[in-house]
Amino acid sequence: MLENKDQAKTSLSQLGEFGLIDHLTKHFTINQESTLKSIGDDAAVLDFGTKKAVVSTDLLVEGVHFDLAYMPLRHLGYKAVVANLSDICAMNAKPTQITVSIAVSNRFPLEALEELFDGITMASKVYNVDVIGGDTTSSQKGLIISITAIGEANLDDIVYRNGAQVSDLLVVSGDIGAAYMGLQVLEREKQVFQVNPNNQPDLEPYTYLIERQLKPEARKDLKELFEKLEFKPTSMIDVSDGLSSEIMHLCKQSNVGCNIYEEKIPVDPQLINVCEEFNLDITTIALSGGEDYELLFTIKMEDYDKIKGNPNFTVIGHMTQASEGMHLVTRANTKIELKARGWNALSE
Amino acid sequence: MLENKDQAKTSLSQLGEFGLIDHLTKHFTINQESTLKSIGDDAAVLDFGTKKAVVSTDLLVEGVHFDLAYMPLRHLGYKAVVANLSDICAMNAKPTQITVSIAVSNRFPLEALEELFDGITMASKVYNVDVIGGDTTSSQKGLIISITAIGEANLDDIVYRNGAQVSDLLVVSGDIGAAYMGLQVLEREKQVFQVNPNNQPDLEPYTYLIERQLKPEARKDLKELFEKLEFKPTSMIDVSDGLSSEIMHLCKQSNVGCNIYEEKIPVDPQLINVCEEFNLDITTIALSGGEDYELLFTIKMEDYDKIKGNPNFTVIGHMTQASEGMHLVTRANTKIELKARGWNALSE
Repeated sequence: MLENKDQAKTSLSQLGEFGLIDHLTKHFTINQESTLKSIGDDAAVLDFGTKKAVVSTDLLVEGVHFDLAYMPLRHLGYKAVVANLSDICAMNAKPTQITVSIAVSNRFPLEALEELFDGITMASKVYNVDVIGGDTTSSQKGLIISITAIGEANLDDIVYRNGAQVSDLLVVSGDIGAAYMGLQVLEREKQVFQVNPNNQPDLEPYTYLIERQLKPEARKDLKELFEKLEFKPTSMIDVSDGLSSEIMHLCKQSNVGCNIYEEKIPVDPQLINVCEEFNLDITTIALSGGEDYELLFTIKMEDYDKIKGNPNFTVIGHMTQASEGMHLVTRANTKIELKARGWNALSE
Repeated sequence: MLENKDQAKTSLSQLGEFGLIDHLTKHFTINQESTLKSIGDDAAVLDFGTKKAVVSTDLLVEGVHFDLAYMPLRHLGYKAVVANLSDICAMNAKPTQITVSIAVSNRFPLEALEELFDGITMASKVYNVDVIGGDTTSSQKGLIISITAIGEANLDDIVYRNGAQVSDLLVVSGDIGAAYMGLQVLEREKQVFQVNPNNQPDLEPYTYLIERQLKPEARKDLKELFEKLEFKPTSMIDVSDGLSSEIMHLCKQSNVGCNIYEEKIPVDPQLINVCEEFNLDITTIALSGGEDYELLFTIKMEDYDKIKGNPNFTVIGHMTQASEGMHLVTRANTKIELKARGWNALSE
């Protein structure tokens, strides 16, 4: 809500629920052949023929998952969609449709919801997914967003969390930790702003980190890349809660252990600089940060040559017998037990 | 939250998000052949073969859609599922799966969530639908429930809102208005309770109305009945927001008008008695009440003999040219314009 403070404001109650839904959804277009019926009926109808339908859902609550003081609504809408599509990508499926439900308190003018839906619409265009339904209602406090994403895949292409085998290599796409550090920068700026609203922050040294926090992308490209490189991950998950937490999910569901190597974890140079500035440990941030929306997956050892040197991928470790446990091997070559310190919505 | 005030309380933060999800979902079983993968991965996988997938979603907010002062959590869970399945039934599809996302503030102990999930589980068993995913997180205030329902249908069986033709008959299942009147009774009892907590209410004269409010059912049976009677509605919608509002949806989307007859609107004798007691107009309650979860549909005139005398159905009117408008013909035989006074979540 930082931008455009002087915009016109339209009360939601003037429009009514159906008017609001019409207003907010009129720009959605249908692009998927499989979308037989979209918004405007009791339910959406999807034709998957012999393809499998993949479904994922998320609930985002203001003050818990996002802070409108530094998250512009357009970005929030975009990110809410991306976070769900990332789950579909983590199944090695192609995202095809989403439903979007929102609840808002009366303090939100229509223009605020329009910004939110602009972001949702933008994401739906960038990722070529249809918005096929949803619900719009009021809340007692704040903004709540619930998105369900649907994707399609051939049964043979789908990758689960439970397929990792002993001696498989553990691989992560992109770099890790930047989104969380972007949040730290924005939190600090919010506090500076509260003390002195006239202060003009210089965010130049943090652009990459802030972009990773405010406008993350789902790795929809990787399914195609896997096909091109002619291999299929044995297990896969997206990095939303934090790298260590996701690694532990893969290990537990596949009934294996792992060794991951601190020196291998891919981080952006900007993250290194800012961790120094904030006096934070880079590895802790990378392991526990979350919201990276990169994909973490395992591959068979014999597929290593197919990803070797590929700038999209970094091998960070390998899977072991479950009895060996899950460990981080530090730069000093000491082995410490991996702990899930990922983001936990229910902790106090 | 009226029942079992002395139960043990477990803080949600003790469990953590994953612990809570494990705890709450461990009783869900998979019954649908089409559910290839359910909870425990990034997304659910559904196999619809040549069937079509039908998807609907709802967001329920405490203080807006329900009041825990008189809505026990077990009933709330049941009703939240039923409301979504009703949308699938309104497509003439068979409900097969649901996703359930909830956000709760820390004031809810684990036992409260267990009650909620008991109700959800009960509904999933009664209606034979799989709970295939969801999200559990915290809220700043109150309880928020988001459910997405998925169903399957042959393409030829699906009934949309936009298929009604001029001279089609308008039919409603069951009776109308009781759920809303049940809410009025409960609201009154809440106020009595606030004044004198020791007062023991006699709810005997209101049992049907209260049951329709606290434990509504979706008309999953009608799809089969339509098949048995060898006809298919030309358009259909479920009665969730109020009969007049739903009639107007059918008319607008089908581009027709209608005449409905006050004397034909099916109401339960208990509703008549209680409307007298509350000094409320029965027709107003029936037209504007909502939450009946009956199905409202149109049939071709030549199919009339197939439903004639069937206790499940009442013909309440017929469709006209759009230019003739939408009217209620009163008992006094005056024609008044139909207005949507249905429940509106965004009005102040």
